[in-house]
Amino acid sequence: MNRQGNTGLGNMSEKAEKREKVLINEDERVDDLQRNHYKIIQKKKGFCFGMDAVLLSGFAQVKEGELVIDLGTGTGIIPILLEAKTKGKHFTGLEIQESVAEMAFRSVCLNGIQDRVKIVQGDIKEASRIFGKASFDVVTSNPPYMEGSHGIKNPDQVKAISRHEILCSLEDVVREASLLLRQGGYFYMVHRPRRLVDIFCVLREYKMEPKRIKMVHPFITEGANMVLIEAVKGGGVMMKAEAPVIVFKEPGVYSEEIGTVYGY
Amino acid sequence: MNRQGNTGLGNMSEKAEKREKVLINEDERVDDLQRNHYKIIQKKKGFCFGMDAVLLSGFAQVKEGELVIDLGTGTGIIPILLEAKTKGKHFTGLEIQESVAEMAFRSVCLNGIQDRVKIVQGDIKEASRIFGKASFDVVTSNPPYMEGSHGIKNPDQVKAISRHEILCSLEDVVREASLLLRQGGYFYMVHRPRRLVDIFCVLREYKMEPKRIKMVHPFITEGANMVLIEAVKGGGVMMKAEAPVIVFKEPGVYSEEIGTVYGY
Repeated sequence: MNRQGNTGLGNMSEKAEKREKVLINEDERVDDLQRNHYKIIQKKKGFCFGMDAVLLSGFAQVKEGELVIDLGTGTGIIPILLEAKTKGKHFTGLEIQESVAEMAFRSVCLNGIQDRVKIVQGDIKEASRIFGKASFDVVTSNPPYMEGSHGIKNPDQVKAISRHEILCSLEDVVREASLLLRQGGYFYMVHRPRRLVDIFCVLREYKMEPKRIKMVHPFITEGANMVLIEAVKGGGVMMKAEAPVIVFKEPGVYSEEIGTVYGY
Repeated sequence: MNRQGNTGLGNMSEKAEKREKVLINEDERVDDLQRNHYKIIQKKKGFCFGMDAVLLSGFAQVKEGELVIDLGTGTGIIPILLEAKTKGKHFTGLEIQESVAEMAFRSVCLNGIQDRVKIVQGDIKEASRIFGKASFDVVTSNPPYMEGSHGIKNPDQVKAISRHEILCSLEDVVREASLLLRQGGYFYMVHRPRRLVDIFCVLREYKMEPKRIKMVHPFITEGANMVLIEAVKGGGVMMKAEAPVIVFKEPGVYSEEIGTVYGY
């Protein structure tokens, strides 16, 4: 991607030498990530990152020196948070929508982390061709949840692509993740529990054995609305269902875990 | 089974006409089930029913008039509790070990529910041949958890058969459950979360789609040690991960849910 031309006037203070002045468009806003003073650019009216991405960045384990890729990175929230939280060597965010990838790139520049985070515009379905097989230690993804032919399509096409399996299916994500990972590498995904059977079956089909899951419940008395999944390329059978994440301890009040672990 | 000769001297008071005096052997004890004044005979030193069976009997849904079979019934705890809790028409408990089946039969007699609960000695692997295909509305099972070739075998053979996949595998249980169920019938199983990927894949292979799961955590901060699963024969894709069961609110003190829902 040639993004040299994207720096420009910005309204952010410079906290580090590498942080660039970047253009913030009128239809965009800048949010504080409550971590390393990092910020992120999002559309005022459009697909914004959610708690799912933040939870995934807390669930994923990246070791020192590892190479990481996030499939369908959207705003770039996952590689930006992982860069802040881990000692991984390098983080790539792959995003198919050019306007979204361009915005994610500006967020990277805004935080001055261009040497560790790279945003690439491209198709998840082509990921292993673009980057090469067995070229990453860790793959993360917060893919579109809605099945292509189900649910109401968002009339806004950008949002729709981020939310629905329009441009890639669950199987596309899992297949490419498996190809991108070295043997023994880790795949982290956040998804809907209602798809868990599909997810397990597809993961196993592509030789990525689920090793840890963590259910996310809005309240302790409610069903899970998200599930965090760790799978290992070529891993053996045996999975752990970890303690659940309970988001709210009472209406409108986050649980302590959400505050301490996830910085909400 | 010919069990007519099994009534004899007993030490239990008679609370209903149908309750028979049954022989309680010296190596057995009688426990109160805290439900309908029902009691159950168990070995003093041997495999006893656990919370898993009690939780499964609370998770399973049996409608009025339905026919139910429990595969690998052991002490008969599941059909006896389901008889007490639901309006199902008839409950069969299948148990391979003759001495265990005989003891379960005496528990049925002790509670005077011989007209609604039948204990049959036989092999799970032969269940659909014994009872006929599509002959039940609901199948339940608390099968042996340990894989045949793994873990330490219990030196006591009766216990070992109840705990290990010695005489039947997970696939045997699922295959027979699928054959026994009418289209649209329900299968309920309690198992270990570490086997969840195997369970989902085998269920789908035998056309039983998981529809509800419920994780059971000893404490809110600990991983799940049991999972309750509902699958529907020929059901469509889409699953719900329900609110978890938290067994203890503090060490040694059961949570309110365990008390109210499960009668502990």
